[in-house]
Amino acid sequence: MKLTVVKIGGNVIDNPTLCSQFLSDFAQIAGPKILVHGGGKIATQIAEKLGIETVMVEGRRITDQSMLNVVTMVYGGLVNKNLVAQLQKFGTNAIGLTGADGGVILSKKRPVKEIDYGFVGDIERVDAGQIAGMISQGLTPVFAPLTYDLDGNMLNTNADTQAQAVATAMSQEFEVNLVYCFEKKGVLSNPDDDDSVIPQLQPEAYAAYKASGAINKGMIPKLDNAFKALGEGVKQVTICHAKEVLAAVSEGNAGTKLTI
Amino acid sequence: MKLTVVKIGGNVIDNPTLCSQFLSDFAQIAGPKILVHGGGKIATQIAEKLGIETVMVEGRRITDQSMLNVVTMVYGGLVNKNLVAQLQKFGTNAIGLTGADGGVILSKKRPVKEIDYGFVGDIERVDAGQIAGMISQGLTPVFAPLTYDLDGNMLNTNADTQAQAVATAMSQEFEVNLVYCFEKKGVLSNPDDDDSVIPQLQPEAYAAYKASGAINKGMIPKLDNAFKALGEGVKQVTICHAKEVLAAVSEGNAGTKLTI
Repeated sequence: MKLTVVKIGGNVIDNPTLCSQFLSDFAQIAGPKILVHGGGKIATQIAEKLGIETVMVEGRRITDQSMLNVVTMVYGGLVNKNLVAQLQKFGTNAIGLTGADGGVILSKKRPVKEIDYGFVGDIERVDAGQIAGMISQGLTPVFAPLTYDLDGNMLNTNADTQAQAVATAMSQEFEVNLVYCFEKKGVLSNPDDDDSVIPQLQPEAYAAYKASGAINKGMIPKLDNAFKALGEGVKQVTICHAKEVLAAVSEGNAGTKLTI
Repeated sequence: MKLTVVKIGGNVIDNPTLCSQFLSDFAQIAGPKILVHGGGKIATQIAEKLGIETVMVEGRRITDQSMLNVVTMVYGGLVNKNLVAQLQKFGTNAIGLTGADGGVILSKKRPVKEIDYGFVGDIERVDAGQIAGMISQGLTPVFAPLTYDLDGNMLNTNADTQAQAVATAMSQEFEVNLVYCFEKKGVLSNPDDDDSVIPQLQPEAYAAYKASGAINKGMIPKLDNAFKALGEGVKQVTICHAKEVLAAVSEGNAGTKLTI
């Protein structure tokens, strides 16, 4: 059976009009599906109002106990439950989850090396059976970027990685299409031309684009991660704009499809 | 099959030592179980730090859009997920839910009469089948006092009422023991003597205690509500101290048992 796993980033969460349109489109995707969401700027804004300083190292949030409370509130409560309530309005029987709920994504607190990231989780195990059980009850899991450990802690977790881990685990039982929605229409052959979307990308062509410099910077870890998911059983990875999720998934005429 | 539905109030949430002991005890309750939690003072504290004024009318929180965001964050995120993570540590496969998750508790925004309570929900329907499905997957639902409507809103909901509504709905399929944990050892025959716990209470005796004034004030709506649950199919209601939940439920030698 097919399963669509869609990841949306903070740029969608932060834009109510785009977010509402996205959720309406997501609700129309046929068959079993899962949504994984990022955090958005609201955690930083609320932390600031609460007098908690945000410290980022290489784009990652340092998560001390105070910041953990903020992201648990904002990602697991405010953002997640509002996405669920809106999806219910659009007729999708969503269930909001963190990794702790049903014990579905167990992590380990990241060991302190040069940097102490604090309460940040590295995923150890995804319980695909439990998630499949929810899907078989007609539910659509909506994951906040939070997991847990066995010491009773919630852990802040990267949403891209969480989407990949969930998609990979679910590929034991489903034909998974993992869809990363971001602010571009897809992988571009010319970074300066937003319309230069590459419709299909395979490892050989990816290597050539990298060698020519056409694909560079932040796209490289994203695509390395995506090809890793394909190598571990995910059937297809699609990279598209949040506005075009339905065209990319249901009609297959938008975004970039990665295959191996 | 038996099912235990336990409600804990804000006084437990606000006391980390008591809360941890309670969760360890709750984890040891045999058989299927559900936890419903209140909010605690932390929502008021966080609202204050965010510059949002708390307005209470007759003990009920007026929930405008800003306050709704706070309770959605605090009850649905911070409190709920920390309870879930701690229960996982104690070996209980908890799943944190609001009424929106899985569409399990649908409400209607309270109509404005003399007072506009704002985004407060009056429960319309509990999907006992969906909750039973989760229980049959080995999960222990942990409910935050939040529900939703079909317009895409989360709604602030009274935890006592939510516990009663869930217990009543589940009594279609289970023999339900609904347990209200509070700050006294049970229903007292003498309000000034904390050890004067009435072990068993039936409607006739309740009427006599009310007539004599031994049971009065805030206990009356609590008990009226409890007897209503019994009238609608709940097998037993137990009222006990959070410290004695295991003695009251598993050993039957603490608290007050209500029967009809």
